[in-house]
Amino acid sequence: MPDAVLADRFRFVLVRTSHPGNIGSAARAIRTMGFARLVLVAPQRYPHDDVTAMAAGADDVLSRIVVVPDLASAIADCRLVLGATARQRNVALTEHTPRQAAPVALDAAKADGEVAFVFGNERTGLENDELALCHGAVHIPAAPDFSSLNLAQAVQLLAYEARMALLDNPVAPPPKKSDPPADAAAMEGFFAHLAATLDDIEFHKGRSPQTILLRLRKLFLRAQPDERELRVLRGILSDAQRMAKLAKER
Amino acid sequence: MPDAVLADRFRFVLVRTSHPGNIGSAARAIRTMGFARLVLVAPQRYPHDDVTAMAAGADDVLSRIVVVPDLASAIADCRLVLGATARQRNVALTEHTPRQAAPVALDAAKADGEVAFVFGNERTGLENDELALCHGAVHIPAAPDFSSLNLAQAVQLLAYEARMALLDNPVAPPPKKSDPPADAAAMEGFFAHLAATLDDIEFHKGRSPQTILLRLRKLFLRAQPDERELRVLRGILSDAQRMAKLAKER
Repeated sequence: MPDAVLADRFRFVLVRTSHPGNIGSAARAIRTMGFARLVLVAPQRYPHDDVTAMAAGADDVLSRIVVVPDLASAIADCRLVLGATARQRNVALTEHTPRQAAPVALDAAKADGEVAFVFGNERTGLENDELALCHGAVHIPAAPDFSSLNLAQAVQLLAYEARMALLDNPVAPPPKKSDPPADAAAMEGFFAHLAATLDDIEFHKGRSPQTILLRLRKLFLRAQPDERELRVLRGILSDAQRMAKLAKER
Repeated sequence: MPDAVLADRFRFVLVRTSHPGNIGSAARAIRTMGFARLVLVAPQRYPHDDVTAMAAGADDVLSRIVVVPDLASAIADCRLVLGATARQRNVALTEHTPRQAAPVALDAAKADGEVAFVFGNERTGLENDELALCHGAVHIPAAPDFSSLNLAQAVQLLAYEARMALLDNPVAPPPKKSDPPADAAAMEGFFAHLAATLDDIEFHKGRSPQTILLRLRKLFLRAQPDERELRVLRGILSDAQRMAKLAKER
């Protein structure tokens, strides 16, 4: 199933939002994470120029915004409804972190279900009768002494976790590979070249070559250079040897 | 080691920020995630009323803000410097997602190191010479066709991942110790010495010094040499330079 189809089963529901700028910022936030559906429940000021300004070009999200009078209307067709709560409350809801919530939401979406993340008013959050419509709570594990995230920031975090869950999905492209480390024989060739060069440039001067070479081995083995990096390093050694040879021909 | 001690080893560096409101929003964002240190590199407008307004009470973060003229000053004492990049660029830096970056950063903090997350200007991001000062890149896996997060949102995501890593590690195990890696200033000193030596031994010969130097930076940053290893490497460079000087005196 393509990611875009799954992503389109997610909606972000903003309830009684006070500041239109936050609606625009939320539109931008979900757009950056590959989502497109914003539902506004009784927004206090909408439409408003600040929505467009803060959306920063997320026009496809703005054009699909749906406005409804109450939360029940926003989520009627949803299989899973998760409400964001700033504080742990004594509500009889299963509470997830965003990281725990994302795979739960993805599973619902994969099973052909519609999924809603619900966010309350900036100052007052979700009311208890609104939380009662949710199937679970999402609590961002913020610092206990300063736990109030900006609304659009909370939307960003949940959208991010949902995107991470989607990208972990088997349909995600394989991660791009860097070059593999050089093999042991190539590393030994480099170390022999390094030892010869240290002799040529008269590096040791009374110090123990063995100790220094062991230290350098440890350093370069830790770096795990690839073949191309070894070629660069050996090029440097060769030029240092060439200079040493010229110096000694004086 | 208490979490608060670890958290205080993290700094969030905002480079050439245009909008003071974003500085305030970033202060609030890191505060909600338990962090407190914001460093401003050449902010375009600061101080400004919007900073306070958007910080929404994160006064302890605002009171600790440090302003410096350039990125090098902001990170000189850091063991790990990770730069946020909106797009995948052809920079020779190891690239992490925020989720991959967080445990790497936490390990550095546990090993007594200072850690910096660096964020560029809202419109232009980090310049290449600024990225060159970073030890790794953090790329938020945003939607490829709309990848530009608001600055404070990007700060929020990285702070969130760092907090999640901290919460997964409530009590740090004692770091098993070899010597700690050299700090950023020492690494830059080594890279300058390396660049000078390559010139002296006439290494480049028509090849691009920039490409080679970026490749070598990546290799040596990966190895995380300690101070003593750097002294050995710089001793080798000095002897190669001495040979080159003798060769040219012929």
